[in-house]
Amino acid sequence: MTLSISLGDLAQKFQLELMGDPTIEVSGIANLRDAHSAQLAFLFSSAYRPMLNETAAAAVVMRKADAAGSDKPALISDEPRMVWALIAELFDPTPVPDRTIHPSAFVHPSVAVGKSVTIGANVVIEAGCHIGDDVTIGSGSVIGEGVSLGYQTRLFANVTLYHGVHLGDQCVVHSGAVIGADGFGFEFDKATATLKKIPQVYGVRIGHRVEIGAGTTIDRGALNDTLIADGVKLDNQVQVGHGTQIGANTAISGCTAIAGSTRIGAYCLIGGAVGIIDNIVIVDQVEVTAMSLVSQSIMKKGRYSSGTSLLPGKDWKRSIVGFKRLDEILKRLRRLESGSGS
Amino acid sequence: MTLSISLGDLAQKFQLELMGDPTIEVSGIANLRDAHSAQLAFLFSSAYRPMLNETAAAAVVMRKADAAGSDKPALISDEPRMVWALIAELFDPTPVPDRTIHPSAFVHPSVAVGKSVTIGANVVIEAGCHIGDDVTIGSGSVIGEGVSLGYQTRLFANVTLYHGVHLGDQCVVHSGAVIGADGFGFEFDKATATLKKIPQVYGVRIGHRVEIGAGTTIDRGALNDTLIADGVKLDNQVQVGHGTQIGANTAISGCTAIAGSTRIGAYCLIGGAVGIIDNIVIVDQVEVTAMSLVSQSIMKKGRYSSGTSLLPGKDWKRSIVGFKRLDEILKRLRRLESGSGS
Amino acid sequence: MTLSISLGDLAQKFQLELMGDPTIEVSGIANLRDAHSAQLAFLFSSAYRPMLNETAAAAVVMRKADAAGSDKPALISDEPRMVWALIAELFDPTPVPDRTIHPSAFVHPSVAVGKSVTIGANVVIEAGCHIGDDVTIGSGSVIGEGVSLGYQTRLFANVTLYHGVHLGDQCVVHSGAVIGADGFGFEFDKATATLKKIPQVYGVRIGHRVEIGAGTTIDRGALNDTLIADGVKLDNQVQVGHGTQIGANTAISGCTAIAGSTRIGAYCLIGGAVGIIDNIVIVDQVEVTAMSLVSQSIMKKGRYSSGTSLLPGKDWKRSIVGFKRLDEILKRLRRLESGSGS
Repeated sequence: MTLSISLGDLAQKFQLELMGDPTIEVSGIANLRDAHSAQLAFLFSSAYRPMLNETAAAAVVMRKADAAGSDKPALISDEPRMVWALIAELFDPTPVPDRTIHPSAFVHPSVAVGKSVTIGANVVIEAGCHIGDDVTIGSGSVIGEGVSLGYQTRLFANVTLYHGVHLGDQCVVHSGAVIGADGFGFEFDKATATLKKIPQVYGVRIGHRVEIGAGTTIDRGALNDTLIADGVKLDNQVQVGHGTQIGANTAISGCTAIAGSTRIGAYCLIGGAVGIIDNIVIVDQVEVTAMSLVSQSIMKKGRYSSGTSLLPGKDWKRSIVGFKRLDEILKRLRRLESGSGS
Repeated sequence: MTLSISLGDLAQKFQLELMGDPTIEVSGIANLRDAHSAQLAFLFSSAYRPMLNETAAAAVVMRKADAAGSDKPALISDEPRMVWALIAELFDPTPVPDRTIHPSAFVHPSVAVGKSVTIGANVVIEAGCHIGDDVTIGSGSVIGEGVSLGYQTRLFANVTLYHGVHLGDQCVVHSGAVIGADGFGFEFDKATATLKKIPQVYGVRIGHRVEIGAGTTIDRGALNDTLIADGVKLDNQVQVGHGTQIGANTAISGCTAIAGSTRIGAYCLIGGAVGIIDNIVIVDQVEVTAMSLVSQSIMKKGRYSSGTSLLPGKDWKRSIVGFKRLDEILKRLRRLESGSGS
Repeated sequence: MTLSISLGDLAQKFQLELMGDPTIEVSGIANLRDAHSAQLAFLFSSAYRPMLNETAAAAVVMRKADAAGSDKPALISDEPRMVWALIAELFDPTPVPDRTIHPSAFVHPSVAVGKSVTIGANVVIEAGCHIGDDVTIGSGSVIGEGVSLGYQTRLFANVTLYHGVHLGDQCVVHSGAVIGADGFGFEFDKATATLKKIPQVYGVRIGHRVEIGAGTTIDRGALNDTLIADGVKLDNQVQVGHGTQIGANTAISGCTAIAGSTRIGAYCLIGGAVGIIDNIVIVDQVEVTAMSLVSQSIMKKGRYSSGTSLLPGKDWKRSIVGFKRLDEILKRLRRLESGSGS
């Protein structure tokens, strides 16, 4: 984060209108509240416009309408969040892969290793894997038999891929993620009164540009591959059950649990800590708010919720009493309406 | 998955009635929708019977009643799911342990290592452990002091067992699982206004044939061992609190959180993303549906739920308004019933 | 756990009143139900006083009022839970760090390593890290570039810290935890109809005496550091989003999901499996019960809940029908009250 760049250069590089002195230098980005005088900040919503007078930032990226009447040096864009994504790349401290294979890594002789690959310390790559060009595998990661990793895919440290997992190009997998563990499949065996394991004989197929968060688990399939389409983004600690399919460019927030054999469409937005049961279908462009339970198929795009809103403890207890009596409430209403209420 | 086997051989091996040509060969299993012409599929429910006309499968395992009037070659069973579990074993691609100890593994000289043990790369086994015959420990796993692993137990890669954890025979532990970390025990210290740690001095005892999913965490106990009985199956990302007990053959789906010192019975079915509070009792054969909160003991077997069903956003907001006013609704009902309503 | 200590010595060491024979020896602690005759048990609540007659424990730590009329040898304290925390330390079997650096560990030459440091097998420490005195790093842990770990901080096995993560003194991080992975930041790019990644350029700053549970994930910030203040305790499988702040001495139970840019106060108690949305504020001393969803800021201290209580399946389904009709119920009530009901 030692880069310093002038507002003039930023305006030219990202084709932005500049309001203010082009020679002002910025050496980092920050939010409006915390920015210091050498940093560039961002105004994403007019609601925060009063902070323009308070921020110490050297300059602010904002919409033209928000900049009107402000003295603050400004880079103008209709899409300040997209500009943020682009400028942030300049200041990204993520270590650049060094394109070396650490001597402590164990790579089975049968593995096909591409060009410019980076393999960290204590990595294990089992037989029959294909490692594409420019792939990076973080220290301590373990790659099972017959795995393929596409061009520029990056696994951070301590990732585990079981046998028969396939990732496309330019994927990112964060630490602690486990892809390809057995799905949860057991059948009650009456003869022994125990649960018999159903072997999970399929794998996991992941498309291009998929990001998988820390501690996320994606199980292998039992009767078909688990499929994650191109451009899907999974946050941390998401659980994807066996044989489930997730459509392109769907984003799923942290701690969401998806059971097996469910098919989720493209361009869905699934909130955090959502539960989705097994064997259902969710069409494209469905939005599910945080902590909802999807207990049946959703066949129409739109926004869905379940649960109740947060209440102070005493109020909540009173509502809970009423919730238990809802069936009775309906009956009493009917009785009153029929004139026999009192 | 290069095995090919004839329907005749399958019928004989698993003592199934065969309807159709015994010389037909199958080289894998699949679901009805995706099966190709060399695969065996399964009809688990009569509801999907129409798919018999569409599937490309070479043959289908199904109940006799479902096979009536169909030309599809069939293996007949009253328990098609149990037959699935048995046949799937033939096609299981899970790598067979090679019964070698990788030279990079660190095994403390005091460890008792059984026969035919497989230990992967970079495994660490601390002092005083007992590793049973036929045990497999995946690469990158770390086994703390004094751990015991029973006959044929298999840990996949990157599993962590703390000191004093005991697993019985034929257990399976998936990657990223952590067994024996400290339970969450703190006491508010008035003198310093901070939270003082309560050392978690007990361990974790796990029976035979227990399966533990990827990323699942089972804490060690504070005043008694955490106990997981024989045949328990825990899915991915389950959390088991300190000192909790889970009865034999109970199955717990993904992302369920169980607090400390709770006692769960045998043959329970706990859905995904369920919450179970601390210090309660759940008797045998209790079923809890997905994402329910168990906030008090359950003393009678049966099925239990909490939460609300999923609604389109606008409908949900209207119901939420009503939920907050349930206490008021009851009062207004009472007033109407007493004749003073309007 | 081979230590044996007399009640007299315990009374003196912790300044407790002793009722009974000071020469009685105890060699461990246990709960009242399971304690055997050489163990010390604890009576935390008068509700369990009848167990004094049943327990086999050699002696019991309890309040004076509870000891009255009992023959059981007793150590008297107004705070039996705090005494438990102190005495448990005597019997803690957690392996003591051996203050050696395992030969298989990879420590970059630029790392500043303090005195009496313990580094386990296969640990990786990247360039530019500062490792304080008395630090312990468990086997298989991977520490990214520029990380700092304060005095006596202990990471258990298989922990992952990304670049630019800072932990203060006397922190504890359990296995499988991942600190500093990218926050979940993407912006919809209309031009390509895909989600563009927003680089997460900030880090994670963690204070002193913080404990982080197994499998917990704390993301790095995008426009400001993620901040965890002194004395915070996070249980297992907690998720902390990017740029979120958690105030001093707050305790958060297992499987709670906290979205990004939220500010949680000091001395809060957040129950297990709670969801907290992004960009809100929670003041000091807020208590949230298990599995609640915090969907808006909480500006007043106190106890909060959401959700519904557990019901038998049939009763629950009836209440759910009523929940969907709450808006209609309110309308029918109004009609009845206005005299046009029937």
